[in-house]
Parts: sequence; C-alpha cells; structure tokens
Amino acid sequence: MNQHVELFRQEMEGFAPHQRQFLEIGRRAGRFPSAVARQGSERTDAEISVWCSNDYLGMGQHPSVLSAMKEAIDTYGAGSGGSRNIGGTNHNHVLLEKELAAFHGKEAGLLFSSGYTANDGALSVLAGRLPGTIVYSDALNHASIIDGLRHSGAQKRIFRHNDTAHLQELIAADPADRPKLIVLESVYSMSGDVAPLAEIADIAERYGASTFLDEVHAVGMYGPEGAGIAAREGIADRFTVIMGTLAKGFGTAGGYIAGPAALVDAVRAFSRSFIFTTSLPPATAAGALAAVRHLRSSEVERERLGANARLLHRLFDERGIPYISPMSHIVSAFVGDDARCREASALLLERHGIYVQAINAPSVREGEEILRIAPSATHTSQDVEKFADALDGIWQELDIPRTS
Amino acid sequence: MNQHVELFRQEMEGFAPHQRQFLEIGRRAGRFPSAVARQGSERTDAEISVWCSNDYLGMGQHPSVLSAMKEAIDTYGAGSGGSRNIGGTNHNHVLLEKELAAFHGKEAGLLFSSGYTANDGALSVLAGRLPGTIVYSDALNHASIIDGLRHSGAQKRIFRHNDTAHLQELIAADPADRPKLIVLESVYSMSGDVAPLAEIADIAERYGASTFLDEVHAVGMYGPEGAGIAAREGIADRFTVIMGTLAKGFGTAGGYIAGPAALVDAVRAFSRSFIFTTSLPPATAAGALAAVRHLRSSEVERERLGANARLLHRLFDERGIPYISPMSHIVSAFVGDDARCREASALLLERHGIYVQAINAPSVREGEEILRIAPSATHTSQDVEKFADALDGIWQELDIPRTS
Ligand SMILES: Cc1ncc(COP(=O)(O)O)c(C=O)c1O
Ligand SMILES: Cc1ncc(COP(=O)(O)O)c(C=O)c1O
Repeated sequence: MNQHVELFRQEMEGFAPHQRQFLEIGRRAGRFPSAVARQGSERTDAEISVWCSNDYLGMGQHPSVLSAMKEAIDTYGAGSGGSRNIGGTNHNHVLLEKELAAFHGKEAGLLFSSGYTANDGALSVLAGRLPGTIVYSDALNHASIIDGLRHSGAQKRIFRHNDTAHLQELIAADPADRPKLIVLESVYSMSGDVAPLAEIADIAERYGASTFLDEVHAVGMYGPEGAGIAAREGIADRFTVIMGTLAKGFGTAGGYIAGPAALVDAVRAFSRSFIFTTSLPPATAAGALAAVRHLRSSEVERERLGANARLLHRLFDERGIPYISPMSHIVSAFVGDDARCREASALLLERHGIYVQAINAPSVREGEEILRIAPSATHTSQDVEKFADALDGIWQELDIPRTS
Repeated sequence: MNQHVELFRQEMEGFAPHQRQFLEIGRRAGRFPSAVARQGSERTDAEISVWCSNDYLGMGQHPSVLSAMKEAIDTYGAGSGGSRNIGGTNHNHVLLEKELAAFHGKEAGLLFSSGYTANDGALSVLAGRLPGTIVYSDALNHASIIDGLRHSGAQKRIFRHNDTAHLQELIAADPADRPKLIVLESVYSMSGDVAPLAEIADIAERYGASTFLDEVHAVGMYGPEGAGIAAREGIADRFTVIMGTLAKGFGTAGGYIAGPAALVDAVRAFSRSFIFTTSLPPATAAGALAAVRHLRSSEVERERLGANARLLHRLFDERGIPYISPMSHIVSAFVGDDARCREASALLLERHGIYVQAINAPSVREGEEILRIAPSATHTSQDVEKFADALDGIWQELDIPRTS
C-alpha cells in the first residue's frame, strides 16, 4: 500500500455514508414530477414526487425536445466525435449559438459542456486576459463563478450580497484606469433572491466596468420569451455578458455565454475548458435548441411555475414556515441545523413520498442549512397544498423554528 | 462603450478568421466516416471523409448505443434535472460507474461531465487535498491534466516526456515522507506514442507514490476487453487511478475515474467540478454504458482500427511521410510549419474531400505543427490507401520535408 493512498484512507474513514451515496431518482418522462427512488440496493417502489429538480419547467419531458433529440441521434449519431475546433462542430451547435445570441439580444453566443465550465472558462479569460483587471464579485456567487475567477488570477473584491452601496464603495476606491468587471447572478441559486440589476448597471456604467450576469436560474423562467431577469426589467442591453445553462429551465444540458463579438471571440480562442474537450453531443444541442425555441413562444410553463411559487409563498406565510426570499421560484425553507435538515428531508421522503434534498455545507455555510424547495410547472396547485401541509407537520415534529 | 470591452476589441482585432470559425461537420449515423462539411454559409455539398475524429471505433453510430439512448430518452426524458447530489442521480449513472470500476478492476468509479472536468476535478483533489503532496507530471500531459494540477496548488515537477530516468532522478531527490503522485497518459493525445508503463509503475512502487493514468486515447481500443494499455500489459492493478473518457473510443460523452474506494470517495466529496454541476443526461450515460458493454465483448472494431493504423504506418514509411510514432492509431504527420500545415489541411478538403484538422499552437508548440490523423474502424483499407496517396501529393506540392 503506498503512502498517498493510505493517507486518503485515513482521511475518508470518518466520513458519513450519506456523503458517499446519492439518492437515485428515476424520473419518468411524461409523468414529471413523479419518479421512483432507490438508495443503494433498497428500492422504494412507491412513486415519489420530486420537489428539488432544476428542470423547473418540465422541458426535460417536452415532446418537442425528446423528438428533436431522437431525430439528431438518428441523423448524426451519439457523440460529436471531437472538440469544437477538431471535427466536433455540428450544425446544431451553430444554430444553438445563434439562437442564444438572438435570445439575449447579443452579437454572439458560445456553448460549453455545462454551466460550470462556461463560468470557469469564460471568467478565466474575461477576468484574466487583460492585465490589471479588477473583479467585483457578489459574496453569494456560485462555486463555478468563484472557480473561474480564481483561475483567472485577477485581483478580486467581494461585495456583500446584493449590497450596491458596498459595491460602489469598493469600485470608487480603485484607480479609474484599471479594467473592471462586475460578476453577479440574477436569481441566486440557494437563496432565491434577486439582484438589484438596474442599480448595478448604473454603477457599472458610472465606472466603465463590464458586467457578467449569471442568469442560470432565470433563463426560460422570467422575462419576455423567458430571456431572464435583465430582460424582464428591460435592461438586458446594459449587461455586457449574459451567462446561462441549458440544464435547468431548458431541461437538457450544457452552458453558454452571450455577449459582444470581441469578448466571445476571446473566450472561444483562449478558454481552456472550451477548447480542450469534446463538444456537446449533437442530440443534446438539438434538444436544447428545441427547448429554447419552445419557451420563446410559449407562456404556459412560466405561468404555471409562477402560480405555484406564489401559492407556496402564501401557504408558508400562513403556516409560519420561514423561507429566505419570496422573489423567485426557489423557495429555501430555513432550517439552520445540519442534523434536523437531513432528518426533515428523510421524513418527507419516508412519510410523504416527497423528495427535497437537504442542503448542507459546503453548498451553504454551516448553520444556514436549508431545504431548497423548487416547485415546478409540472406540479398542480393540489400538489403544492399537500406539500405545504406535509412540511408543516415535519416542522412541528422536529421543532424547527417558525417565523414569529 | 466601457473600457473593458474596448480593450478586448483591440485585442481581438488582429485575429485571423480561422481562429473564429470552425468547420461544421455533419457526420451521418450509419455512414461514418462520411460527413457533409460547411464553413460559414458556404456548403460543400460533396461528401467528405473524416480523418480526425476521436470516435475511433465508430461507436457513435452503433445501433446498440443509439437505441439505448433513445430508450433512455423515452423513459427518463432529456436532462437529469440536477447535480448528482441533488436529484440528478439516475440509474444509468450508477450502473455505468459500476461497469467502469469492473472494467478497470478497481473498487469504485466516478462519472464527470467530460474527460476535461474529470482530470480537472479529480486532480484538484488527489494532488491538492493532502498537504505536502508533490506531483510528477509528464511534459506532454494534456491541458486538462495541467489545469487540474494547477488548480490543486500542489508542488509540481515536470519530467521530460516518457523519460523514466528523469522521473527517477526527480523523485529520488524529494523527501521520502512527502506524499507523491505521478501523473501521465498511456497513449499521448498529440504524438500518439505510448508511455513506458511498467518502468513508471516500478518507480512509483519504489518511492511509495500513487499513479494517475489518463487512458483517454486507449480505453476501448487496446487490451483485453478494451480496458487500455495498462490492461494490455497486464499491469492495470499497478496503477492507482485510471482515468478515461466516454467521448472517444466509446463514441458518446462524459469522463470518469476508477480507483480505490477511499480516493474515489474523496473526489466525490470534494471535487468542485463534480459537485457543482448538472449530471450527464441519462441518455448519454445509457449510450456510454451500451458502448462499454459492447466493446468489452467485441473484438472486431479494435481489430479493424489496428489493421488500418498498421497499414497507414507502412504506407507512410514507403512514401517517406514523417510521423511522430508508430505505437498507436494516432498518426501525427509532422509538418512543422504553421502556414503549410493549414494549407495542407485546406487542400486535402478541397481536392480530395478529406478532412484532417491542422493542429497548431496552442495545442502543440510552435514549429511542431502536425496533421493529427486518426484512421477509424469505419475506414476501409482502400480508404487508407487513397488517403496515403492524397497526402503524398500534397507533401509534394507544398514541399513539406520527408524522412530521408
Ligand atoms: C448560479 C449557477 N451558475 C452555474 C451553475 C452551473 O450550471 P450547470 O449545472 O449547467 O453546470 C449552477 C448550478 O449548477 C448555478 O446554480
Ligand atoms: C489526454 C486527454 N485527456 C483528457 C481529454 C479530455 O477528454 P474529453 O474530451 O472527454 O473532455 C482529452 C481530449 O479531449 C485528452 O486528449
């Protein structure tokens, strides 16, 4: 036994099994939010209802998405066979990039394997390529943003979450001649609150800074055609780069940026996570394209999601179940305790066939554990009511604090 | 116009169009290596033959792969809907990880969105988690390995490509009590030569080092059941972690590691590129699983690829076309000049309907430009002969140096 492996064995000995095993979820196309769950070899044969999927609009089962994927498989095969630059550019990649650019009203779009690699790869270049760049990053930005900025090597200032006064203070203190980039999300992934976009755009313009806006939890869900929160506020043109994913509202997989041609060209030319990897399977790109096109013209899914979120907010308010923000469809019920958070999740599954994953560190800070609840457009209002009642019972049983 | 964007515009002004535009390849399932090519709006309606795909065995059009994907789409839908830990673990992910562990004779397997994120995420943890770790990395390791090691923050020594004396010298000079990790590829992606695996395993054992072996261009193609070069040499058990991709020999998409449970657990628990992203679409995992299972029991594809590679080596030898190594199916014809390399690629396409991408910096060093030729199991020996003749003509016309 070599020393390196032996040290890892020691390190992992104290590790709890829940950190090793993930609940296996068999979602069933055409029957979302219903699924079958399995943990290890144990099978819960009863149907469960998934309340923590990021496939918020149910596009992952939309017939137009599924048939676009199957058609692409029949036409082009399984994988792309190469990186974008070496034989791996399929017509669907090109069409999807054009569609996404138009969707956000930007000059160009660029696809990545995931939202994670989009943030990592794009920010490495946009923050790292111009010497002297200073980055201003919201304290609650996603891990993929943090990684991209770290990998850029750029100087970084963290502003307090959604605190524009703090941002303004930091940016005003820096030399006017340094290139500046403000990086933020629109809908925050764990807290579900929304950034003060207009004020941030004001600050960016005042100081000649670029902006990089992660709309991962907003694209498909908000604004005209589902183009996101900046579009809803009518100010998408005030953000330099809009970044999104195809894996959440669009129900498939892949990430992207949309922005000015020069910036997108630079990312295409220098981003290592873009260059040195096989491109998305043509079928994934085709499915994503179908999802984007559908949601640009259909309002039903957005309306159902919005109605479910509003109903859930009201029912939680009535029951005194605390949640972080009523600003979006991400309803993070606040537990604030590691063990009770896991317990609440386990009881919901056992007793009610409801699956909500407990969110513990490192996804949130210790003491800020939440049940991150995501109603979807595929839940009915009856589902929402049953869910609120189930959660209420568990709050009671585990004696989790309520709002006063 | 803000300053940051303006600087990027200036930076990108001198950029050549070929760095902006990729050749669009419409591979046709059931008819590989045939495809239709398009550059920008210009369409070459003639069929082309792809000679640089990494879908070496044609699994991207294998009926069992395509039907597994379509079945998974019908059953589970398009995307997974979540990260592995939050609702995004599908039965196909679990089955595939078990299959890959068994395939390599290791305790556990772990799936990533791509080989790039597998190397990045796994090496960040395996090199970075134990304080004091020293890494020994081959000079020609792939960008994804370099990035993972950089992100780990570990101390790094580069040994000259495939130079075991240099590796031995470096490792002997370091303190015995520091944890050590040797990182290498089996078949090198650009040069196509093969690492001296047994000697490296000897050194690792002598100094108590772990080994991380990237078999991205070998899995599916070499060894019993296609388990790679280490398996072919009968020494897979002497390598701690074997890393591979599902996007090349297996014709789909995704990356993985297989290794001791403790190491895989650590990567699962701490790797940011694993945790903070949506998992692979169930259909991609299902297709990859079908490809792995097929190639574990079928020899035909490997035999055809091997025969094509040997024929190409012989024909190049007869014609004095220089190539880097005869050790694998990656046949890198050496051009050594940026402009002529591009020109050769363009002429092959124009005159012969043959697509081989020119490989220029940053994928290889300047002055080491190559045509990286990859025959596939779907080429016939007649195709190979026509290809060698075509290349011979171009070598003549562009006056590219020959072997003496
Ligand atoms: C804010 C934010 N950005 C980026 C990502 C990464 O997106 P993807 O799942 O497509 O990798 C996520 C979630 O995973 C996210 O929550
Ligand atoms: C040696 C090597 N490792 C890793 C990768 C990354 O694999 P993937 O294309 O699955 O991201 C590649 C090629 O892309 C490679 O050549």
